[in-house]
Amino acid sequence: MIGIFDSGVGGMTVARAIEQLFPALPYIYFGDLAHSPYGSKSREMLIEYSRRNTEFLLTQGAKIIVIACNSASSTASGTLRERYPLPIIDVISPAVRKAAQLSQNGRIGLIGTRATVHSGVYARQLKEIRPECDLYTQACPLLVPLVEEGWLNRRETKMIVRKYLRPLRDQQIDTLILGCTHYPLLSKTIVPRIGKRVHIIDSSVEVALHLKTVLEKDNRLYTSLLAPEVKSKYFVSDLSSPVQSLAMSIFGRSVHLEKINV
Amino acid sequence: MIGIFDSGVGGMTVARAIEQLFPALPYIYFGDLAHSPYGSKSREMLIEYSRRNTEFLLTQGAKIIVIACNSASSTASGTLRERYPLPIIDVISPAVRKAAQLSQNGRIGLIGTRATVHSGVYARQLKEIRPECDLYTQACPLLVPLVEEGWLNRRETKMIVRKYLRPLRDQQIDTLILGCTHYPLLSKTIVPRIGKRVHIIDSSVEVALHLKTVLEKDNRLYTSLLAPEVKSKYFVSDLSSPVQSLAMSIFGRSVHLEKINV
Repeated sequence: MIGIFDSGVGGMTVARAIEQLFPALPYIYFGDLAHSPYGSKSREMLIEYSRRNTEFLLTQGAKIIVIACNSASSTASGTLRERYPLPIIDVISPAVRKAAQLSQNGRIGLIGTRATVHSGVYARQLKEIRPECDLYTQACPLLVPLVEEGWLNRRETKMIVRKYLRPLRDQQIDTLILGCTHYPLLSKTIVPRIGKRVHIIDSSVEVALHLKTVLEKDNRLYTSLLAPEVKSKYFVSDLSSPVQSLAMSIFGRSVHLEKINV
Repeated sequence: MIGIFDSGVGGMTVARAIEQLFPALPYIYFGDLAHSPYGSKSREMLIEYSRRNTEFLLTQGAKIIVIACNSASSTASGTLRERYPLPIIDVISPAVRKAAQLSQNGRIGLIGTRATVHSGVYARQLKEIRPECDLYTQACPLLVPLVEEGWLNRRETKMIVRKYLRPLRDQQIDTLILGCTHYPLLSKTIVPRIGKRVHIIDSSVEVALHLKTVLEKDNRLYTSLLAPEVKSKYFVSDLSSPVQSLAMSIFGRSVHLEKINV
């Protein structure tokens, strides 16, 4: 099984991208809704939660871990890799690589939660790949609650998105990384406000493509994951009403979320 | 010591109201930021968190507990009262009593988080006091994130507040309960949008007045709490940057927040 975790439902955009690319690879999804949202929590708390989430996925038989959350990826992926001897994929490196590849003017924008933006991970990774590039960042802490309310096309959401994007637009970025797994759900609102010529990097797609590269190199891992008859499973550490409908709108089908105690 | 807990910083509006009324009674404040916000969590999760918070305050010497959070009050106050043999004050009853007293047309509005509104506690309590009154409710899940971002006077906040209040306005309520301890920070935005003739019930003020009644009846409890030389203490289960400045804006002074592990 592939193990995927996130603070809540945002990471389901990653799960969906993975299942579209690998319909025969079942996965276990864990959404840590009891501690959601991660974006405004401290670094040490996120490391602790990520450790617990990984332990849970391991007990469920995960052979590879996907951290489908930017806040957790940016603060905890190093610790998880030191501690657990299995492949751990985060949502950051694939998006940074793609942005570095696509940008022509070397001016790249990043939007994300406060935890993600303050971690500085994107800037450090970008400097390693393309040192001459500049990264312009903007924390957008209200976008996760807006998405979780389902306010995807409301006027207020558009105004808030415009406000957040203005400084990046002023910097004439030509590439924008959606540094939060909730944000692809807002892409129709984001694209016209940042400008249609700006490349939009959706990390969920990049993660799925990166997983493809990993599995192509490691055939034993790939075959160990293959189980076309096994169904993917969805666990959450808390369950309240809007979550179910948000999951449905992400997957385009009804999804059974099983609540477990953490 | 008086023990006060909340999911985060909203309950500080209650703490402030209590210290204004009782400058000689020190308190211990606990903000459960590791699990914040409470408003979208399930009932059973909120009972579990409230139990843990109460245990912590007891170890710190609390002799009376104030649940300074509507989501926790509406879901967990019954369980806490059954389990712990000390006075437990919630934020709901004092506000309901005041609203029942003030309303002339019997049409009362309530705004709060989803957990608070869905619990139905306000309606049940109101029916007991004034059965002929009607309660009109509106869940406002985006207001807590907006307050926590410090967006108190932004145009987007005003638009969202207007949208939330419109159905209550249409119902011609004459009294509005601010059913979340964050909302008094938005009162300047709320008052002109609901109409200046509508009575606004700020539960933080009502809780402090209710505490006064409790202490007037129980002189032994009052003298056991008296300790003018002892300073109030503030604990949080997580500490990230915006919290400190929000605490400062609530109290009008700098407040030392001590992080503890839960």
